[in-house]
Amino acid sequence: MLTVGLIGAGRIGRVHASTIVQDEGSQLVAVADSVDENAKNLAKLYKVNPRSVDAIFEDNSIEAILIASSKDTHSDFIEKASIAGKAILCEKPVDLSLARAKRCLENTKSNEHLIMMGFNRRFDPNFVALKKALDGGEIGTAELLSITSFDPAPPPIDYVKVSGGIFKDMMIHDFDMANFLYGELPKSVFVSASAIIDKKIGVLGDYDTAVATLKYRDGRLAVIKNSRRATYGYDQRIEVLGSKGLLQVQNMVENSMVKSTEMGVESSKPEYFFLERYKSAYQNEWTAFVTAVKTKTPMPVSLSDGIAALAIAEAAAASAEMGSEVEIANFL
Amino acid sequence: MLTVGLIGAGRIGRVHASTIVQDEGSQLVAVADSVDENAKNLAKLYKVNPRSVDAIFEDNSIEAILIASSKDTHSDFIEKASIAGKAILCEKPVDLSLARAKRCLENTKSNEHLIMMGFNRRFDPNFVALKKALDGGEIGTAELLSITSFDPAPPPIDYVKVSGGIFKDMMIHDFDMANFLYGELPKSVFVSASAIIDKKIGVLGDYDTAVATLKYRDGRLAVIKNSRRATYGYDQRIEVLGSKGLLQVQNMVENSMVKSTEMGVESSKPEYFFLERYKSAYQNEWTAFVTAVKTKTPMPVSLSDGIAALAIAEAAAASAEMGSEVEIANFL
Amino acid sequence: MLTVGLIGAGRIGRVHASTIVQDEGSQLVAVADSVDENAKNLAKLYKVNPRSVDAIFEDNSIEAILIASSKDTHSDFIEKASIAGKAILCEKPVDLSLARAKRCLENTKSNEHLIMMGFNRRFDPNFVALKKALDGGEIGTAELLSITSFDPAPPPIDYVKVSGGIFKDMMIHDFDMANFLYGELPKSVFVSASAIIDKKIGVLGDYDTAVATLKYRDGRLAVIKNSRRATYGYDQRIEVLGSKGLLQVQNMVENSMVKSTEMGVESSKPEYFFLERYKSAYQNEWTAFVTAVKTKTPMPVSLSDGIAALAIAEAAAASAEMGSEVEIANFL
Amino acid sequence: MLTVGLIGAGRIGRVHASTIVQDEGSQLVAVADSVDENAKNLAKLYKVNPRSVDAIFEDNSIEAILIASSKDTHSDFIEKASIAGKAILCEKPVDLSLARAKRCLENTKSNEHLIMMGFNRRFDPNFVALKKALDGGEIGTAELLSITSFDPAPPPIDYVKVSGGIFKDMMIHDFDMANFLYGELPKSVFVSASAIIDKKIGVLGDYDTAVATLKYRDGRLAVIKNSRRATYGYDQRIEVLGSKGLLQVQNMVENSMVKSTEMGVESSKPEYFFLERYKSAYQNEWTAFVTAVKTKTPMPVSLSDGIAALAIAEAAAASAEMGSEVEIANFL
Repeated sequence: MLTVGLIGAGRIGRVHASTIVQDEGSQLVAVADSVDENAKNLAKLYKVNPRSVDAIFEDNSIEAILIASSKDTHSDFIEKASIAGKAILCEKPVDLSLARAKRCLENTKSNEHLIMMGFNRRFDPNFVALKKALDGGEIGTAELLSITSFDPAPPPIDYVKVSGGIFKDMMIHDFDMANFLYGELPKSVFVSASAIIDKKIGVLGDYDTAVATLKYRDGRLAVIKNSRRATYGYDQRIEVLGSKGLLQVQNMVENSMVKSTEMGVESSKPEYFFLERYKSAYQNEWTAFVTAVKTKTPMPVSLSDGIAALAIAEAAAASAEMGSEVEIANFL
Repeated sequence: MLTVGLIGAGRIGRVHASTIVQDEGSQLVAVADSVDENAKNLAKLYKVNPRSVDAIFEDNSIEAILIASSKDTHSDFIEKASIAGKAILCEKPVDLSLARAKRCLENTKSNEHLIMMGFNRRFDPNFVALKKALDGGEIGTAELLSITSFDPAPPPIDYVKVSGGIFKDMMIHDFDMANFLYGELPKSVFVSASAIIDKKIGVLGDYDTAVATLKYRDGRLAVIKNSRRATYGYDQRIEVLGSKGLLQVQNMVENSMVKSTEMGVESSKPEYFFLERYKSAYQNEWTAFVTAVKTKTPMPVSLSDGIAALAIAEAAAASAEMGSEVEIANFL
Repeated sequence: MLTVGLIGAGRIGRVHASTIVQDEGSQLVAVADSVDENAKNLAKLYKVNPRSVDAIFEDNSIEAILIASSKDTHSDFIEKASIAGKAILCEKPVDLSLARAKRCLENTKSNEHLIMMGFNRRFDPNFVALKKALDGGEIGTAELLSITSFDPAPPPIDYVKVSGGIFKDMMIHDFDMANFLYGELPKSVFVSASAIIDKKIGVLGDYDTAVATLKYRDGRLAVIKNSRRATYGYDQRIEVLGSKGLLQVQNMVENSMVKSTEMGVESSKPEYFFLERYKSAYQNEWTAFVTAVKTKTPMPVSLSDGIAALAIAEAAAASAEMGSEVEIANFL
Repeated sequence: MLTVGLIGAGRIGRVHASTIVQDEGSQLVAVADSVDENAKNLAKLYKVNPRSVDAIFEDNSIEAILIASSKDTHSDFIEKASIAGKAILCEKPVDLSLARAKRCLENTKSNEHLIMMGFNRRFDPNFVALKKALDGGEIGTAELLSITSFDPAPPPIDYVKVSGGIFKDMMIHDFDMANFLYGELPKSVFVSASAIIDKKIGVLGDYDTAVATLKYRDGRLAVIKNSRRATYGYDQRIEVLGSKGLLQVQNMVENSMVKSTEMGVESSKPEYFFLERYKSAYQNEWTAFVTAVKTKTPMPVSLSDGIAALAIAEAAAASAEMGSEVEIANFL
């Protein structure tokens, strides 16, 4: 039974708490949050103790830490938990500052094998099936990857302000997915982006609609489309064209009912947002983490993976600003 | 916290145990099984005590009983649990003997409000959506209901021997679904049936492929198709034609990946069997039971519902044998 | 160039005329209709001469006759055209009277190889693909055939009066499809039927909603569902469950556009009615007829096939009336 | 009856010939081709006379010219036919040289209303439905357009040599589609492209896989993906994300049959190539041309439209070469 301390009792922290308690190989023992009330409420729900972050790090009976606190604390907490010898699962990103994230990697070198980054989508059963088919050569050699990733609605403007921008907050998931599927980092990125949904987002220097084109050393291409607003739900589709065919992952829908009337044929919308769409991804992510800790095998997503996605995100932001293609190597 | 004793630790008992422990409103406290080993293993998994059936009935701290034992024990256990004043969720059927089932209803009259029959499909989110659309008049008045219900593979012949036959074992679910959707019992049933998959099933006087046509007082019709073998998985589809349109529930599939190659376009199979397909139905069924007990509201599926489905199953068996249409009234 | 005389310039006659003139192997040379105006209008459109039926039969330069006149004239015209030595494509049914249809077969024995019945659906590319997959053993041995066949809207009551009833007018197509797919006639038929859409249809002793179950010598089953009203369009689906899988033909839709909004996901309705849905079936039917004539190979659908479907339709009507299963042999 | 002379009797010329003769408002009267044999064969098939190009231009009884000859002849023939006062439908592109195309526009100014460019996809019923829904505000304001356009197999290398390159030969259709759907020209284009399918294409300085991102004055974006090889058939999909939803046009498939077995669920591939996929688009294009000529209404696709698409294609080629974003204004 892996004993776990959870840092961060906000929306995503609660998702993880529920996953941890349902997993038969792990046990939630403590919850911390910068807002006492949050920690108390969540701790109460699962009959554990609210604690301070430091108390959790100092408790030798706690084997693993799940970091789901605000982004600007990630690298600090990774370092502290690493010094305390804990196994760590940390939400993305490593840090909003690429430089800081790289220092974090430096500072945790000796315990790197204990650190996993929470790119949950790598554990979605649909994307796993696609990855397996791709690696199995079922469509020959991959040539053109397309990722469609639209949120149902833009976040509050106060969130946008501290989000790090669309590339580090949202498209970073898709950069990691491209890295995961292609098994290689891109050579360059070009981004076209707009603030067309909400002018206020543009005023902040951020974007709400963006298209990134990635180019790889061998000529393979990838396109990522992001939008902060898809009124019909969370649109999460991937397709890969290969020399022998096409693989597609389509959206998961709310139910399988279809209604046909004089007005047309109506079916169910995509699942609304990440809590619904990636429920099993979070569960599988946690299982993979617990398994890696217990079997002392390499983490399925490393801190370096987190830094790679962050570097591409920073390159993408630079491309959007300059209006020109940017070499990824300059950011690694 | 509703305290629960589970009777029956076989395949379906284990499904229910897992559901009970994951539900926040209930607590599994005891497990019984006619095979001691089964009870012990399941009890160990959930850290509860294996007990005898009688010990469970006698324990006043146990509020609810889930009956998932063999079919021939259902009506006995319902009666005993009812006398003990327990809330009861019993797997279908009430009994293989319609007469015995009716006596069970007689004998539990005073506590009928505490008894729920486990027709899990009524709680499947897809069928619930269909029921809601139907009752909401979204396709006008229903005229023709079609249920396709195919198992992935025939059960072992030893199971077939004690199953009560395809109508009481398999199609009874579909009869209950028709009762649920139409909100009314049929007037008559006609069945065409064959043992075309496995001759040994025919030798037992049973069938593996069957089509039932139900006729209702106002002229509405329903067709139910059953097969014991659909090599591509559990095929569970429903459609209703109404005066203003068609409602369909399609199969749930294993994943949303699609592969297109020179050979064609391939997508995922239906979920393999009831454990996968009806996972959320079992969870919702349990929640509905717990809620009804706690709020002292009527059970969503009554013992009478169980007897109605059983009576239609018996009528269907008679129709198959005689080759003629049979009035349901003769069996109620 | 096969020279063709068309008898019948109504709705279906016009479909055939358009098909004939587009076919590179045939030439429309004359049109007849009991309503002079109809013949004139259609003849003018294609720059041919309107003629009397007899004039067409007597014209030795006309090689083939397409009979698309009213049902009660079919067997007379088949006989006359047969005596005149013409190749004949006749719309279904052979006759509304089974006895008369059988006499027609007797009377045309010597020229039977020149007569083809117009069961257009046998030439639909989708059903042809299904037939091919079935015969190729792609789903093993067929066990259960299901045909869904719904018209978009009931015909005018005046049409219903002379239609011969739902079994000879509508379900006859599905009986022929079952004969085509299974390659064998059923042993018995049972029908449940209602007049639930329009009471006036019931007053005429006819039905608007019907389910037929067919049983075959080896235990295979077939179910046919008919409704006179599917507000969402012409619903024409077929599926066959076999020992190794399932084959389905789904509806053809008006276009491939999908709209996703907050309200749901909307796609296109099925093509509205037979003119749209079976356009290519009519073309392929005609090509098959012309080819059979030119190559002196057997007609793909014989007069006997027409009588078989008619006999099953008559048996079905009898079953609906008596409420019991009926042996097909009694009607052959 | 519009009398038509066809110039060019190759693959696409034959498509148009078949369309012209099936249209009730037009009549094919002459065919010319630089290869006499081609002209003769096609003329024979439709019982018209093979002629020289000049003879067709000089024949006053010919009202309309369809130009389907090789690309390098388009602007010359447009000019000559324009001087002769003919109505003209010309296959894309106007010319491989943008400068020459612009001169052609200059030289035909006075008769511009008689010239239509053959961007057939604008007449595809599916895309027409999308355009109508878009203009009807069904998804609010358009924000992000995506066009997937993959050929089934790369053309012969000899064709590639004279094709004008992927942007003028293939993606030009998609640029025109973007112009059509958005009703406005883009501000800039950025292209990432590779020769990853066939190195020989790269040796020619051309590409076989390309992604173009278009940016519009108001911040709207568009992405076009081209590949010369989709082994599963002609992949022609479009989607538009708007402020209130998503519109998608999916592929048309060969048939609607689905096969489910132990191996998975198989359905039909997309229609193989443009002859099949855009058959009705060619028919509707021709009808639109004939109607515009007869009713003296503006051509639905003008010569200027042809030049706009060509200019974007030239800008795209420049972007691919330079690796930077290119302003469209510099090419108009």
